[in-house]
This record gives sequence, C-alpha cells and structure tokens, in this order.
Amino acid sequence: MASVRIREAKEGDCGDILRLIRELAEFEKLLDQVKISEEALRADGFGENPFYHCLVAEILPAPGELQGQGIGSRIIKTVAEVALDQGCSQFRLAVLDWNKRAMDLYKALGAQDLTEAEGWHSFCFEGEAMRELAGR
Amino acid sequence: MASVRIREAKEGDCGDILRLIRELAEFEKLLDQVKISEEALRADGFGENPFYHCLVAEILPAPGELQGQGIGSRIIKTVAEVALDQGCSQFRLAVLDWNKRAMDLYKALGAQDLTEAEGWHSFCFEGEAMRELAGR
Repeated sequence: MASVRIREAKEGDCGDILRLIRELAEFEKLLDQVKISEEALRADGFGENPFYHCLVAEILPAPGELQGQGIGSRIIKTVAEVALDQGCSQFRLAVLDWNKRAMDLYKALGAQDLTEAEGWHSFCFEGEAMRELAGR
Repeated sequence: MASVRIREAKEGDCGDILRLIRELAEFEKLLDQVKISEEALRADGFGENPFYHCLVAEILPAPGELQGQGIGSRIIKTVAEVALDQGCSQFRLAVLDWNKRAMDLYKALGAQDLTEAEGWHSFCFEGEAMRELAGR
C-alpha cells in the first residue's frame, strides 16, 4: 500500500496540476477543451482573491497501478473536512455518465446524483457566445 | 415596457435576495432545500473572501407580468460582461430538465447543454454525508 499525504497545493505545483488536468481530460475524451496554461493556473489560484482552491495528493512510493488504493476516497474525505471547516453546507462534483467507476464511488460515499434524481442539467456559455452576449 | 437597472448587490439587498431564492425554489418545487438564512447570505457574500457575487435587477415600475420583457436576457448579458472583465473563459448555469422555457432561452442565447451533449451529471454531498465523510 502506497503512503498518501494530502496537502494544500502551492504555486509551484501548477505544472503538475496542468499535467493531471490533461491526463484526466484525455481519459474523458475531452482533451481539446483544455485551454488553460500553467501561467493562468498560477494567476487564478494564487492571487489575492483566488478563483479556485486545490488539494494535492503526494503518493510515495508511486505504484504503477493507482486505482483501488482508496486515494480518491481519501481526497473526497479531505474535501469534506475543508468544506465543513469553511462553513459549506454541501459540495458538488461533475461526472460523465459513462464513468461508472467514478459514479459508483461517489454514490458509495453518500453523494446524490442530482441530474438523475431531480433532472438538473449543466449549461455553459463559452468564449464566442460570451463575447457575443457582451457585445464585444 | 418596464425600465430595468442591473447593478451589483449590496449587503442590504440580502432580505430581498432570500425572498427571490425562495420564490425560485417554490417554482422549482424544491422549497424544502432552502436552508440558508439572511444572516448567512450577508456573511457569505459580503465578507473578505466572498463565497458568491450577485447582480440585482431593479425594475421600475414593477409590472404585474415580468416574463417576456427580456429581463432574463439582460441579466445573462450582464453576467457575460462581468465574466469577461474578470478573465473567465466560460460561465455555467444549472437548470431543471422540465423548465423548457429557461432551457430554450439559454440555448437561444448561445449556451450548450453539457448534460445533453456530453453526459455531464451533477453530484452532491450534503450535510449528513459530509459529516460522515469527515468523521464528525
């Protein structure tokens, strides 16, 4: 069993974070949607009013096969701790409907699928649509 | 046609904001999910690192029927302006699948339904599940 340490991300992690964002997007078959740069990740996460917060799991020694070691569950548990500390009443995740492994994990940990249960759809305005809306 | 002025919310708007949250939730048949108080809205939105930002549409004179006056579109356009000013590359909305009127409006304004197009589901961990995860 690998040893896992979960900690807050530092600005110097942004290169690794971008690599992991790309690996996840590749798995999701959505790599063409990743347009963010390491510089933007640094600026957005480590300025005065950060746009995001990030946890990093350090795994030692890095095993070849990471699945099934409970690392995902430990990260989700840490997110729950942070969220409660910050006074949040809930936290949300987005998951693709064919990613059964992730969906099963989230459900096993007590999450509710709001899209399935209540019919919530996620809508997105992107670059061109946003600029047109704003008349720019 | 009513005159509409869209501005940033002030702390003193929180009573009205809570009333509108309740009216929306009632329309969505989810009023039992509204647990936030006016005090929490004040603390979350108007402290040092606000959890949310809010725009308010002032409508004068308030007509009996607000639908069809383009107020929703104007608010969405203002959100697009603010988002671009802040350096955002997109903005998202959550909508219930039976709310065809809202879905049609968002699509007409250029939004994509990510749940329909790519299969994104929204998962939620709430109070009891979060506390259990965090071992509290």
